[in-house]
Formats: sequence, structure tokens, C-alpha cells
Amino acid sequence: MQDPFTQKKQKILSEISANGTDNLDASPKGTIDEHCLPIIHLINSHPDMVTTSSCSGRVSVYLEGTQDKLVSKGNEGKWIFVTHEPAETRDWYKTVDFEYGSRFPSAAAYGTRGILYKFEALILHVKCRDLQTSNQLYSLAMSCGFRESGIGSNFNVAIRISIKLDVPIGFLDEDTGKYACFVGEEYLEYLTKLSLDRFEENFRKLKQLYDAIEKYVAGSDGAGATSENKPKDRPTWESKEERRERMMKEGLKRREELRRD
Amino acid sequence: MQDPFTQKKQKILSEISANGTDNLDASPKGTIDEHCLPIIHLINSHPDMVTTSSCSGRVSVYLEGTQDKLVSKGNEGKWIFVTHEPAETRDWYKTVDFEYGSRFPSAAAYGTRGILYKFEALILHVKCRDLQTSNQLYSLAMSCGFRESGIGSNFNVAIRISIKLDVPIGFLDEDTGKYACFVGEEYLEYLTKLSLDRFEENFRKLKQLYDAIEKYVAGSDGAGATSENKPKDRPTWESKEERRERMMKEGLKRREELRRD
Repeated sequence: MQDPFTQKKQKILSEISANGTDNLDASPKGTIDEHCLPIIHLINSHPDMVTTSSCSGRVSVYLEGTQDKLVSKGNEGKWIFVTHEPAETRDWYKTVDFEYGSRFPSAAAYGTRGILYKFEALILHVKCRDLQTSNQLYSLAMSCGFRESGIGSNFNVAIRISIKLDVPIGFLDEDTGKYACFVGEEYLEYLTKLSLDRFEENFRKLKQLYDAIEKYVAGSDGAGATSENKPKDRPTWESKEERRERMMKEGLKRREELRRD
Repeated sequence: MQDPFTQKKQKILSEISANGTDNLDASPKGTIDEHCLPIIHLINSHPDMVTTSSCSGRVSVYLEGTQDKLVSKGNEGKWIFVTHEPAETRDWYKTVDFEYGSRFPSAAAYGTRGILYKFEALILHVKCRDLQTSNQLYSLAMSCGFRESGIGSNFNVAIRISIKLDVPIGFLDEDTGKYACFVGEEYLEYLTKLSLDRFEENFRKLKQLYDAIEKYVAGSDGAGATSENKPKDRPTWESKEERRERMMKEGLKRREELRRD
């Protein structure tokens, strides 16, 4: 009989392996960000940790909902644009039917459905077996500069960093039904450039975190484990294509196993 | 002999009481934000908690430093404007010598010292005596919507919420030494309006947190303590003038005590 943590971990790993474009999870995107896969596999290779959610960092343009509160996410709030891939940010605003040169909404902000441009950095949630492991993972994340990390209930560690942009760029013109934009195309282009810098910094920090966790996992295996003698099945950085192929194989294998169960 | 937590707490309380415009602390502003004082006193009235740092929420305009990294805070980075008071945001941009209508910097963002407009919400750090207290405070903060809260090392709880704005508005023109602004005055006015809404939401959440902690503190005193029978010296919401007067009295008293020691 497995202990409760290991049972829970097995269940999560099954879900991760089965996840794919034909088997979406509950997140808005429905699949795990590819940039997160190496660190997810690394963390899950440790017997006392399991990843429960992740976002590798993203650019999004969000139309607020109709609810009477700030940055309303419910009630018809919707993503106008979202990507986790730096390359896909190129000229994104040319694909949106913005009405440039719009005036600013005259009513109070609460009455208007604003449009926000956001850059959000990597966030990882990791469930740990015990207090010691959660404390170690927390300290490790902090030492890599993930200064907004914290431990929650039941040894769940949130790994967070404050690389961000949060910029009002327009609003929904209720008369025309169009996206009114009160900043120019040149400003949107500049925001996109800044976001590319932030993506770069974000991935640099992700790599730093990966390396630190790799060292931690190696140390947990037994004293003195180094990159020379680490287990061969430990995940390393891989190309997008390699990741895709591996994930597909793993998913098929897992689904086969689930079917057999 | 006091236990280590109580010793540490007494030391922090002395520093808080002695803090004032003629006795600055290590923070950029040098004094504790007045909006935080009621909740600081409330938290510190609990024997197992002590506040270690706080910001009640603020609007700031920041010129990045010269270091070769994102949003550099060192190397000549400086605040162009900062306030914790909603009323003081009024027409703030008229006090800054902006050059409007500037072009965007052509070089990579790393080479340019950007100017960022920020709204940051309440943040509180609370050191707790033990794991149980930190877990309870964490859960309480999460239930009030402070969803980015977390427990750090040594039972330190960070209480955080994601109400924010983070907007690039200009850069330092190295040729003229002036603050080049690539958004218009009307946009800055709109940002300021949005910030006032965020301040309102921020103080609403602060009040909600205060009420929840008050209930928790009352519960810790003994079962069944209600607002009718709570101790008379428990702090409640007070006006700016009342707060100022009380703090002055407490500070004088504390300094008198320190002198006698």
C-alpha cells in the first residue's frame, strides 16, 4: 500500500502524462506549457515533490468582464490574445481589430470594461511530502531570485517572481462593440519589445532554477552525486521537437496503462 | 527570562514605537505608513505574532538605474514620484518636468533607462511564533483574497494581493537629461483615475483583513470573545489625526522607557 503522498503524486503524474491537445486539463489553455516540461519532469523525479500547476510565462491581452469589481475575470471577461511563445508576440496587434486614437472612457473605471496588456512570469506550484522538503524548495527558489515565493497549506510551495507588465491599453466601446485603443500602434510595438526582454529574463531565471533544483535532486539521491554520475533518465534541456515527441510517447504509454487498469 | 520570540518581538515593538520623522527606519520612506498602523497594532496585540515590515499600497513613478538588468533598482535608479495617499496623486504629473510626445527609444530596452508608473497594493510581513500560528494567519489572509500570500522561513508570513499596475511611460533622454514621456498627459490622468479605484479596492481589502484578524485575535483571547466584550485597549479604525497623536504619545513614552533602561 502506497502512502497518501505517493498515491496523490501517482494520480497527478497520470494526469500530466495523459494531458495533450486531445485531452485538455482545466486550465484556460488546456495543456501544460512546453517550456515548463523539463522542470516539471525534474521536480517529479524527486520522491518528495510533485508539480500541481504551472505557467511558463506569457503575454496576454485581456478584456475585463462585466462584474462590478476591479479586473473582473468572470462574466464575459475574455482573452483577446494570449501566448507563451516569444516568437508569437510578433505583430500580435495587427491581428486584433483595434480602433486607434480613441478617447478615454469618461465614466468611472468600474463602469467600463477595460483592456489590459499583461506580461506574467513563470509560476510553479509544487506539493511537497513534508515541511522539510517545502522549506528547502522555498529557500532554493528564493536564492534564485524568486522573491515572491511562499509556502501555503499542506506543504504546497508557490514559486513566483515579480517580472511583470500590467498596462491599460483600451476599453470595449459599448456603442460600436469595438475594441477602442487609446495608445498607438507604436506603443504596442514598444510594449512587445519590452515583453521580449522580460521573456528572456524569465527563461534565464527558469534555467537558473532548473540548475539549482537539479543540484538539489542530485544531492538527495546520495551525497556527492554530480552531473557526471547522475542517473541517465534525469531530464535535461531538450528541443521543442524532442519534448513533443517524448510527451507524445509518454502520453500514449500512460493511456495504454490506464486502459489496462 | 523571556523566550527568544518574545525578546525579538519586544525589540521590534521598540523600533516601531520609536519610529517617526525624527527617527527614520531603513525603508526608502523611513516611516511606517499611517494606513498600516491600525492593523500593525492589532497584529502585535497577539502574543504569537509581530509585524516586521509593511507597505499600505502606493503609486510610484520610477526611473530605472544603469545596471544591465531588467527594472534595475541599484545604480542611480530613483523615484521620480511616490505616495501612499490617494489624495496626493492628484495632478502629480504636473509636478514632473516631462517632455511629452517623445519618440520611443530605438536601442534595445536594456540600454535605456525606462520610466515606469506603478500601483502596488498592501503588503505585510508578519513573524509568527510557531507553525500553527503562521498556518492560521496564512489561511486567514487567503480567505480574504490575498491570494499571493505565503509562508517563508522561520514562520514569516507574507500577505500579498495582486492589485497592480506596471506601465512603461517614458525613458531618460541621455542627450538632454530630460524625462522623455511617450504617453500623453491624458493617459497619465487616466492611469491616475484607475489607481484611485485600485486604492479604494486596496483599502477595502485591508479593512476586510483587519476584521478577520480582529476576530482571530479575539478568538485567541478565549472562546466567545466578541466586539462587545473585547479588551478596551484593542485598536480600532481611527482618523489620521488620532493616529498621529497616539503614535506621538506612544513614541515619547517608549523613548522615555528606553532612556531609563
